[in-house]
Amino acid sequence: MADVARRAGVSMATASRALSNHPHVAADTRARVLAAAEQLSYVISPEASRLAGGATDRVAVVVPHLSRWFFAALLDGLESVLRPADLDVLLYHVGDAADRREFFRRLPARRKVDAVVVLGMPIADGERSRLESMGVHIVAAGGQVENYPYVSIDDATAGRQAVDHLLFLKHRRIGMIGTVDPVEPGWPANPGRARAYHAALADAGLPADPGLAVTVAWGGLNGADAMARLLSLREPPTAVYAHSDEVAFGALRTLRRAGLRVPEDMSVVGIDDHPIAELADLTTVAQPVRAQGVLAGRLLLSLLAGEEPPAGITVPTQLVVRGSTAPPRS
Amino acid sequence: MADVARRAGVSMATASRALSNHPHVAADTRARVLAAAEQLSYVISPEASRLAGGATDRVAVVVPHLSRWFFAALLDGLESVLRPADLDVLLYHVGDAADRREFFRRLPARRKVDAVVVLGMPIADGERSRLESMGVHIVAAGGQVENYPYVSIDDATAGRQAVDHLLFLKHRRIGMIGTVDPVEPGWPANPGRARAYHAALADAGLPADPGLAVTVAWGGLNGADAMARLLSLREPPTAVYAHSDEVAFGALRTLRRAGLRVPEDMSVVGIDDHPIAELADLTTVAQPVRAQGVLAGRLLLSLLAGEEPPAGITVPTQLVVRGSTAPPRS
Repeated sequence: MADVARRAGVSMATASRALSNHPHVAADTRARVLAAAEQLSYVISPEASRLAGGATDRVAVVVPHLSRWFFAALLDGLESVLRPADLDVLLYHVGDAADRREFFRRLPARRKVDAVVVLGMPIADGERSRLESMGVHIVAAGGQVENYPYVSIDDATAGRQAVDHLLFLKHRRIGMIGTVDPVEPGWPANPGRARAYHAALADAGLPADPGLAVTVAWGGLNGADAMARLLSLREPPTAVYAHSDEVAFGALRTLRRAGLRVPEDMSVVGIDDHPIAELADLTTVAQPVRAQGVLAGRLLLSLLAGEEPPAGITVPTQLVVRGSTAPPRS
Repeated sequence: MADVARRAGVSMATASRALSNHPHVAADTRARVLAAAEQLSYVISPEASRLAGGATDRVAVVVPHLSRWFFAALLDGLESVLRPADLDVLLYHVGDAADRREFFRRLPARRKVDAVVVLGMPIADGERSRLESMGVHIVAAGGQVENYPYVSIDDATAGRQAVDHLLFLKHRRIGMIGTVDPVEPGWPANPGRARAYHAALADAGLPADPGLAVTVAWGGLNGADAMARLLSLREPPTAVYAHSDEVAFGALRTLRRAGLRVPEDMSVVGIDDHPIAELADLTTVAQPVRAQGVLAGRLLLSLLAGEEPPAGITVPTQLVVRGSTAPPRS
């Protein structure tokens, strides 16, 4: 604290007031103190912070993609639990890795929230330990993580449900459209879904054909491009497994434009059960997205109440058979 | 203030501290004071509030449907402007009319925010004047409103662009799938889109056939049902105008299940340019949704800076011709 005060050129008392969001501090003084605290990576001790400000009754929700259905549905579920508990939701959209670093760099010194919920993205170990050292709880929803409580599906299981369905229908040449998040290429969701594909083929005694596995950045139009690549093979697949429904919608467009019938000429299966999957007659592996937000909210409430949290909650997925899958034509 | 203190059974000083969110107030005392303030509809004067707490640097964003693309995209744009301005976004999902009343009843006494942005929903006059009386700014995005600044498309113009396109293609029997928000049946977006349909038909000298205009609660599955109703007419339309793309996706499913080809047997046009419209080859009237959030954010910043706001900003829409519309078969 003395270092922060010295660097900001203010008294210890003023630095303390500024860091605890006390009202009687001029805006520019407060900004100077916060900047100094950030430069010094100053972390208010949980005790000092509680003495100074008490519980904030606010929860930061950090989300990498706000206008995608998956993240909005998680947020919907989470908010539905936090608001009745009189916790305000402070929303932080971190669009890229730099945004994310900036968020975690600035949050601790400001001590604005009691907890952080991250939706569908990882937190680095350093970021996590920094939050924990000041008594800020962390929960993740929509992705499996290590070292802090999460709510998620099991991606490997979901992938097996999709690919095993195609294998049961007697498809032997199965393509995969995998996706990576350009913002978070290391996020482990996609590796799980990809590993499931390779494991299912191996279990069925089918040879691995690298040409059948296409990986693109997430997005419907990229799914359309990926399907075109699969159709340009000398021997295209008879069925395609897409890592998400939105990517599968793109694949369906390419098939329609090529004059191919679904499922007669090509089967397509996705993951998610996006609301429009039902309208597109897409067979998919459904995950309960809003429910993951609800469960993450409840997990957070129990943490804030001082209870021992479970290490993680894995919610089940299930195959929903619609009109986009059928046995291959013999 | 004296009334509030009396009702809560505390001193004036304690009531004042509780209402200004001062930290040294016991949680149950604070709750009692807030309850008393709410019962008495107590409104802190802007001056008193500023003295007590200064700017909060927080903006409340009120949204009726969080997991729908339209609202999430508005929120995305808005957040992208508020965060760089160091304003925190407090998210409030008000799922129904009771939720909304509760939000506006509780907000003023707590004085948690400098401004309120409402996304795609109206504010009642009483709610608005209550916020204004305490110096809280209000901005709306995604819907035309009266009496406070908004950013919106012109629904009547968007509707004309859709229906005039079908008329230009020489359709003479045009159906409409109109939608109402079950939560906000009075929200004026839909009347504008419906009036455009009737005006366009009248201008083209076509008779009004009430059987061709179907109104359903918003939603893709309801759009599917509405299309089935139009197909059950003795003389179905040759083209359908849907008030939103998601409803149009449902209509497309019914047509596909009935074995009808789009656009050869039936033309379909929507409004929005939902990201999946491009993948579904849906002709639509595009509105810039994220941009409306961005503009609402800028409008709010200028209001907070004390500048004179424009009464409202109307953003342009435009027809995007894809594969779901064509002249009727003769």
